[in-house]
Amino acid sequence: MDRYIDLRSDTVTTPTLKMREAMYAAEVGDDVYGDDPTVRELEEFAAYRIGKEAALFVPSGTMGNQLAIMTHTQRGDEVILGEDCHIFKYEVGAPAVLSGVQLRGLKTNAGMMDLEEVKAAIRPNDIHMPRTSLICLENAYSSGEVVSTTYMEKIRELARRHGLKIHLDGARIFNAAIYLGVDAREIASFSDSVMFCLSKGLAAPVGSILAGSREFIEKARKNRKLLGGGMRQAGILAAAGLVALKEMTGRLREDHENARYLAQKLIDLGFEVDLKKVQINMVWAKAKPNLNFENLPAKLLQAGIKINPPANGFFRFVTHKDVTGNDIDKFITILSKTVQAGER
Amino acid sequence: MDRYIDLRSDTVTTPTLKMREAMYAAEVGDDVYGDDPTVRELEEFAAYRIGKEAALFVPSGTMGNQLAIMTHTQRGDEVILGEDCHIFKYEVGAPAVLSGVQLRGLKTNAGMMDLEEVKAAIRPNDIHMPRTSLICLENAYSSGEVVSTTYMEKIRELARRHGLKIHLDGARIFNAAIYLGVDAREIASFSDSVMFCLSKGLAAPVGSILAGSREFIEKARKNRKLLGGGMRQAGILAAAGLVALKEMTGRLREDHENARYLAQKLIDLGFEVDLKKVQINMVWAKAKPNLNFENLPAKLLQAGIKINPPANGFFRFVTHKDVTGNDIDKFITILSKTVQAGER
Amino acid sequence: MDRYIDLRSDTVTTPTLKMREAMYAAEVGDDVYGDDPTVRELEEFAAYRIGKEAALFVPSGTMGNQLAIMTHTQRGDEVILGEDCHIFKYEVGAPAVLSGVQLRGLKTNAGMMDLEEVKAAIRPNDIHMPRTSLICLENAYSSGEVVSTTYMEKIRELARRHGLKIHLDGARIFNAAIYLGVDAREIASFSDSVMFCLSKGLAAPVGSILAGSREFIEKARKNRKLLGGGMRQAGILAAAGLVALKEMTGRLREDHENARYLAQKLIDLGFEVDLKKVQINMVWAKAKPNLNFENLPAKLLQAGIKINPPANGFFRFVTHKDVTGNDIDKFITILSKTVQAGER
Amino acid sequence: MDRYIDLRSDTVTTPTLKMREAMYAAEVGDDVYGDDPTVRELEEFAAYRIGKEAALFVPSGTMGNQLAIMTHTQRGDEVILGEDCHIFKYEVGAPAVLSGVQLRGLKTNAGMMDLEEVKAAIRPNDIHMPRTSLICLENAYSSGEVVSTTYMEKIRELARRHGLKIHLDGARIFNAAIYLGVDAREIASFSDSVMFCLSKGLAAPVGSILAGSREFIEKARKNRKLLGGGMRQAGILAAAGLVALKEMTGRLREDHENARYLAQKLIDLGFEVDLKKVQINMVWAKAKPNLNFENLPAKLLQAGIKINPPANGFFRFVTHKDVTGNDIDKFITILSKTVQAGER
Repeated sequence: MDRYIDLRSDTVTTPTLKMREAMYAAEVGDDVYGDDPTVRELEEFAAYRIGKEAALFVPSGTMGNQLAIMTHTQRGDEVILGEDCHIFKYEVGAPAVLSGVQLRGLKTNAGMMDLEEVKAAIRPNDIHMPRTSLICLENAYSSGEVVSTTYMEKIRELARRHGLKIHLDGARIFNAAIYLGVDAREIASFSDSVMFCLSKGLAAPVGSILAGSREFIEKARKNRKLLGGGMRQAGILAAAGLVALKEMTGRLREDHENARYLAQKLIDLGFEVDLKKVQINMVWAKAKPNLNFENLPAKLLQAGIKINPPANGFFRFVTHKDVTGNDIDKFITILSKTVQAGER
Repeated sequence: MDRYIDLRSDTVTTPTLKMREAMYAAEVGDDVYGDDPTVRELEEFAAYRIGKEAALFVPSGTMGNQLAIMTHTQRGDEVILGEDCHIFKYEVGAPAVLSGVQLRGLKTNAGMMDLEEVKAAIRPNDIHMPRTSLICLENAYSSGEVVSTTYMEKIRELARRHGLKIHLDGARIFNAAIYLGVDAREIASFSDSVMFCLSKGLAAPVGSILAGSREFIEKARKNRKLLGGGMRQAGILAAAGLVALKEMTGRLREDHENARYLAQKLIDLGFEVDLKKVQINMVWAKAKPNLNFENLPAKLLQAGIKINPPANGFFRFVTHKDVTGNDIDKFITILSKTVQAGER
Repeated sequence: MDRYIDLRSDTVTTPTLKMREAMYAAEVGDDVYGDDPTVRELEEFAAYRIGKEAALFVPSGTMGNQLAIMTHTQRGDEVILGEDCHIFKYEVGAPAVLSGVQLRGLKTNAGMMDLEEVKAAIRPNDIHMPRTSLICLENAYSSGEVVSTTYMEKIRELARRHGLKIHLDGARIFNAAIYLGVDAREIASFSDSVMFCLSKGLAAPVGSILAGSREFIEKARKNRKLLGGGMRQAGILAAAGLVALKEMTGRLREDHENARYLAQKLIDLGFEVDLKKVQINMVWAKAKPNLNFENLPAKLLQAGIKINPPANGFFRFVTHKDVTGNDIDKFITILSKTVQAGER
Repeated sequence: MDRYIDLRSDTVTTPTLKMREAMYAAEVGDDVYGDDPTVRELEEFAAYRIGKEAALFVPSGTMGNQLAIMTHTQRGDEVILGEDCHIFKYEVGAPAVLSGVQLRGLKTNAGMMDLEEVKAAIRPNDIHMPRTSLICLENAYSSGEVVSTTYMEKIRELARRHGLKIHLDGARIFNAAIYLGVDAREIASFSDSVMFCLSKGLAAPVGSILAGSREFIEKARKNRKLLGGGMRQAGILAAAGLVALKEMTGRLREDHENARYLAQKLIDLGFEVDLKKVQINMVWAKAKPNLNFENLPAKLLQAGIKINPPANGFFRFVTHKDVTGNDIDKFITILSKTVQAGER
């Protein structure tokens, strides 16, 4: 088989030819000395593109989020966030280890915490209690849903009234911007700091951006060194990141369309899909109970298709630049055969 | 006024005459050298009384709970517990600072987490996720409700299947034992470690016990030194603790009766009280909306009564050895006048 | 045997009758609510006695020192201190666990770090380096030597020039004050915070004081809660602490005299003792190589005398209120027989 | 000026054409899923090349060292190491923040700690003391000196006797191997884990390797995710790393020769250089007191030469692949003019 159709995540995207060419030709220097012109160009452009004073190139979205927490908080603080967001669920418990902070996870609905619950979760000044210092938002949310700027604005109001900072995990902020029909800057404007990924849908091989005020970024830069995230001739990666940021944000629209196309096909095949929730490049599909989905990932793999095992009965399929409309048709055809063969 | 009626908490109990006499006469030594005979006696008796191999005397319940977490976990682990338990809400975010662990708070109902939710919260072996290593239970729960041994047994089964340890915050385990009509040992038998307080209802001036296996306690003893909880001639306090443990557990029954008596009086006065939840020495009472409770604590203070301000609309009143039936009558009389005077 | 002669440490002192009476009669309350009048009295008197704005009662010297570090520093800072001081050697590595700070231990001579080395150890503003934020001094030093106020003043000058805080581990500050012939306030005046013990030579059963500015102590109070050092009716212990602080500081002079007397006797017996270093209540004595000191602690124990095993060839003997001149004569007599019996 | 002569560090090396070509053509995948064939190839080859079971690709040497500490230790341990090694001096105090461990820095001589001092620094089992669990070595040392395998073997013996692990910071292990005339595997054979850099003299743009037992590397892989060091299509960087490891180790010999050539020229110019210490690609040169070196870095920069400011009176000059013999001659000529012009 020459090529897999990989629906596991948009983290699997491979760099474009233009990115490879940019990396080949990149002018580089030692970024720890501040000598890498390509990293400097990326950090400046990224700050401009997201509407913040300054930006920092980091090797992963997780590092970007953790640096934000380290930089905004003090040891012993508490952070309010959705209990199913990436920071809480998929960052290996890092906030306690790296920052010594406690997470206060709240239920979410369509990616949003209840404002009253957020307010109630802010700790009063009490000797028994940690100080609440930060709220972490995520947009698009891990569920694939996009959160409105109205909601973000209300959170910001609440945060300001209580002297809290806001960090936005915007790993897929450009997907969110397309869905909302706004500039990514607008989404980022409601938070003190924002992280977004150059990999994922934008297809850079490695790297994310943390952006915020100049003072915040200088502190984060030192914390990045502490975590071992300071890289030398990082301009190689930054060159691809510049292509990602300048040329790849528009094409996310196509991924969204493909996701909706895939969602419809899955419904036709008998899957349960809540179309309202197909807002970006993710489709959550519930298996029909009369079909046998055991070992589906392994079976599909033999046919050249990679998917993740279901979680709580739902399969998550993610579209991206390496999945075409034809690929989706092919996937549906194979899936159809596979599940029918396995009918209980 | 010669004496306050203090309904804020059972932590306000003052030592009995017998305790004072025991402290006066206590034989002491340097406990860091293991030379304090009274501390040794207390630790041995406490272990026996709660049915564990060994015990450690600590200056507070918070320290006992935190030592359990430090000793059971490794940096980077995750701990499952009720989101409104004492460890999560009232221990200043210590687990992140002291142990570097993340708390996974679950909703509770009558002090119990849903077993399916606990099971779902146990992390699989996944590179994105912390290792779940500990479940913390609390009995009696912060809500004043007592949890059944059946529930605890099910949690223990689940924990064993997944290789997790269980710590029990049994600050009021003797209250729970009376409500359940069992020996405290039985409650403690479902957890690997247990903390209980000699202060609170048992009226010792200072101190709690952490109990568990001999190996666990030896490690906890070293962690206690690290926290600065190693005390020198601690036999003074231990002497009172021995009186508390040997002579004061039975009288908690009286506090429970007084709580139910108070609850009924409050209902008569028009408060909402859920009598099913009045299981130990705590009464949660909701204010009538037509009455003016603003500044109630300050107004009552002038009449010699101490209460805490309400939280989420509920007042919590706690009975203990320094609150008699007469005191309750006096409180109700004054409360009745105060709220009527303040009628909206 | 009715009573041991215990030369291991002054931490073994037992409370005086007056302390026991004070504890018996102590008026107490719940100190977490700020309701314990005896604790409040002790904290106020201690602040006055040491010349600081405010003070906090803590269960141990280790907790006092660790609270100072937690309160003065931020996660990731570096602390300069003597490499053989108590904080570095005997506090279980707590600064890394509790505060996330790195210790920079410097060689000391007569308890003093070289000023040029301290200056060189202060980190420049460099992305590769932690921020230096605190210097910890100790007076009297762990070696039993007392540090001059001239030295402390120079350290303070250096600290101010570089924006650093100073914490003083003054576990035996009253011993140091006697040796220097100054008020303890003067010694404490060169540091932002100071910890001193009410146990040890002052003979209170449990407890130490952390003192500093009002703002500092309020933050330390919250950190104390986090460590589990908040105690309820701590007035029991504070009552003894008040006696210690008001009536026991003067008698330390006697311990110093006994130490010099013991030192001379040990020299007569053939031990090497550097008399210049016998400044407070400690004698370091080197064993004669022709004598057999193996198992000396065990042999002396049978004769009713407790000593610690030697460290690096030196025995440390500590005098205190429970060791009289007669006790020293008795010890010397027994020691003399024991070592002669064991002659190689 | 077309090109700077950069003597600040070998971290400034730029990738070779062959590396750029390898990166351009690299087959990549999502390494978090274990899908990147080039990363897998690098990790396997690196393990083989250094003689360990398994290896992990990390974005920096600092991250490699910190992962080793996180993975070998438990919260509250103590680590013995040279007080002027990279981990102690230049890793931002990370061990306390990330691992909660205390560093015990010992004096070094020619990069070696005194064996008796190491032995004395290992903590006994004492309730006042942290557990010693790890020794960190560095070879070549930060001073540019190479440590003998005999020394390393003795440290290993000591470590084994006391149940300690050893981590080797081998950032420049291939330089050390050339100086010692042994295979790098032999140097690595005395430690449980080893980190070495693909950047620096080997000229890969970004990345280092942590190697050790299979079990150790699996744990380190998870800790890498926690630090945010998990990268997606990292094969781009790994492709350059493979070239570095396969083709660049031999040429370090040339850097060493250039360093000795430079050293001799500096001596001729009147600098003090200890030729015995010029063992790899570093020259430490002391300025003549009669010359004016103020602002030397700024003056040389105008002439196209980059150097670091002196530390403690010593300039450090580092040779590497982008510094030729001609460059050294040019540097010496310009330096000669500059210092003569500035003669006092």
